[in-house]
Amino acid sequence: MTTPLPPDSVGLVAPRTALLQEPLTLASGRTLDNYELVYETYGTLNAEGSNAVLICHALSGDHHAAGYHSESDRKPGWWNHYIGPGKAIDTNRFYVVSLNNLGGCSGSTGPRSIEPETGKPWGARFPTLRVRDWVHSQARLADYLGITQWAAVVGGSLGGMQAMRWALEYPDRVRHCAVIASAMKLSAQNIAFNETARQAIMSDPNYCAGDYLAHDTYPKSGLAVARMIGHITYLSDHVMGEKFGRELRSGSFEQGLDDLVEFQVESYLRYQGDTFSDKFDANTYILMTRALDYFDLAREYDDDPAVAFRRAQCSFYVASFNTDWRFPMERSREIVDALIAADKSVSYTEIDSPYGHDAFLLPNQHYEQTFRQFMARIPTE
Amino acid sequence: MTTPLPPDSVGLVAPRTALLQEPLTLASGRTLDNYELVYETYGTLNAEGSNAVLICHALSGDHHAAGYHSESDRKPGWWNHYIGPGKAIDTNRFYVVSLNNLGGCSGSTGPRSIEPETGKPWGARFPTLRVRDWVHSQARLADYLGITQWAAVVGGSLGGMQAMRWALEYPDRVRHCAVIASAMKLSAQNIAFNETARQAIMSDPNYCAGDYLAHDTYPKSGLAVARMIGHITYLSDHVMGEKFGRELRSGSFEQGLDDLVEFQVESYLRYQGDTFSDKFDANTYILMTRALDYFDLAREYDDDPAVAFRRAQCSFYVASFNTDWRFPMERSREIVDALIAADKSVSYTEIDSPYGHDAFLLPNQHYEQTFRQFMARIPTE
Repeated sequence: MTTPLPPDSVGLVAPRTALLQEPLTLASGRTLDNYELVYETYGTLNAEGSNAVLICHALSGDHHAAGYHSESDRKPGWWNHYIGPGKAIDTNRFYVVSLNNLGGCSGSTGPRSIEPETGKPWGARFPTLRVRDWVHSQARLADYLGITQWAAVVGGSLGGMQAMRWALEYPDRVRHCAVIASAMKLSAQNIAFNETARQAIMSDPNYCAGDYLAHDTYPKSGLAVARMIGHITYLSDHVMGEKFGRELRSGSFEQGLDDLVEFQVESYLRYQGDTFSDKFDANTYILMTRALDYFDLAREYDDDPAVAFRRAQCSFYVASFNTDWRFPMERSREIVDALIAADKSVSYTEIDSPYGHDAFLLPNQHYEQTFRQFMARIPTE
Repeated sequence: MTTPLPPDSVGLVAPRTALLQEPLTLASGRTLDNYELVYETYGTLNAEGSNAVLICHALSGDHHAAGYHSESDRKPGWWNHYIGPGKAIDTNRFYVVSLNNLGGCSGSTGPRSIEPETGKPWGARFPTLRVRDWVHSQARLADYLGITQWAAVVGGSLGGMQAMRWALEYPDRVRHCAVIASAMKLSAQNIAFNETARQAIMSDPNYCAGDYLAHDTYPKSGLAVARMIGHITYLSDHVMGEKFGRELRSGSFEQGLDDLVEFQVESYLRYQGDTFSDKFDANTYILMTRALDYFDLAREYDDDPAVAFRRAQCSFYVASFNTDWRFPMERSREIVDALIAADKSVSYTEIDSPYGHDAFLLPNQHYEQTFRQFMARIPTE
């Protein structure tokens, strides 16, 4: 006997795959002749096609943003708090599309896929991607689904970068844009953490220059260290202190001769690294962190974000969290300043949360309320 | 022809080695029958033996705190800005002792030394050390040098922890104590970064469970990643932004087909990791980070630092830096609050510096002035 799925969830969902056969020329100059994107949808597209919302995922996200994959599934999609009937992204009103990005490792074409020319997994030979490449491939998916204009494009962190890029690349295809815990470009410190994570992966001898699948091996320990680095930066110092403090998992300071003292936070982090590295692809991790580093909203607009945003035709929701030190509030304020300078409509909210960057994924009343209000004002007819 | 050494430096110095033959029982319960400590001295011990200052080093420091090792040496000791004739620690007045800690890798007995029982390098079998073990071994070095009481014990970061522990373990042997950019215990986030660094080392296949010397190999890439993690946390976000921003070292965003874009900060960090891992010992790095994690000033004093500090008989100088996020100002304020609650004399200063935790090593007028004033008030007769 299984417990029924929560009534405010989208319930059972199943991923589908779109094969996109129009060649995609990437920012690097390379071309993918065709590619698959795995996606899920929640709610119903209305007759006018005017109620579609695109969810853009962050570094380690995927297409499974809401609902459950089976009756016995106890873990819903990664943004289930905010997507569902009556929730901020209300599936009674909206038709929600959530995909695994190109270059991902949850079913969409990426480094684990077979390279047509060689018949072998792409590995590190998979093209370097930029945020705009994701936006262009998402636009092909929208065409495939018959969506000419999004009611909203929504994302947190790296997802927020995609949402902003959508507003500039396809201004007439986006009516609203939600940019949560994001930034117009990374700081040197952000890049430094990403590069350290990449070095951890690439210096693992099992990385085999990215060809680990062909060698039937996997850089598990390198990816685990990379994830540990990332994980520390997602959490606030405060919440780590609250959650773990200096509690011991084993040993004691009145120790025996050879016992090592181990803190709870150490085994927690190792567990996070270990489970993540079991399921995620190392080349995808490298590719995604590079896309993060490379993103610079205003690079082609004279480095002036106000000039960039003048292209946008949508209205914006921007949110940031006070303990987020990976994408601090200053970065969101810069977005808001540029939007105001570009004479765009923007709702901005700074949210108190102890949870650092991770807060954008977690329940929070103030965040939920402001996000809900923004989405509720979107006409769908 | 060589340029003369700067006149405000202590000039040419040479390390010496003390063989300490009284067995040392460690906090873990294990005993070292004898051990060597490498040290340097600057200035002259006066007839009363009342002008001796002990310098305690931080994670990657060593005994070479000031002066030059040869006429052609262009790089002075790590605290040369603050130790020398007329400097904050004035070698015209003080006799300065600086050692490489037990467990280190710059000449003192440590994991690279030969374990008497096996005739092989200790490696990871070298005993786990706590800050108090360093203090006790430093006290044996003081005996060896004929120093019954320090005019001051001084240290930054992990060195500040040693200075505080000195004041509690040997209250009658310390007259003044300078605690710079330090903390009474690490936060969960600090421990998390240290554990990630340890995992980077230990998951390198060349680590060989710590026996790399016996296997004639070395976990160079793991130690390089560990150092990269550490290095990011020593610098402030701000100074990384000022120093590197998003400047490119190679490639361009109008890139060719297979070029990768590389930021300056990436190659800088890799260089730091690379050069550090050429010279430092991986087991020492693990041992030192564990000592940092384990340190908890008041653990044996009912977790009440005021109770702990009541044992001290010295006066204190405490300094912290506004952009230091590894040992933030709050940690120093906690030290000061506890000292005041314990009715001790304390001078506290918060210093504006863009350089993060590294600021304690760098020239800074306000820091220099307050530190100099504290040291100048120390009677040496």
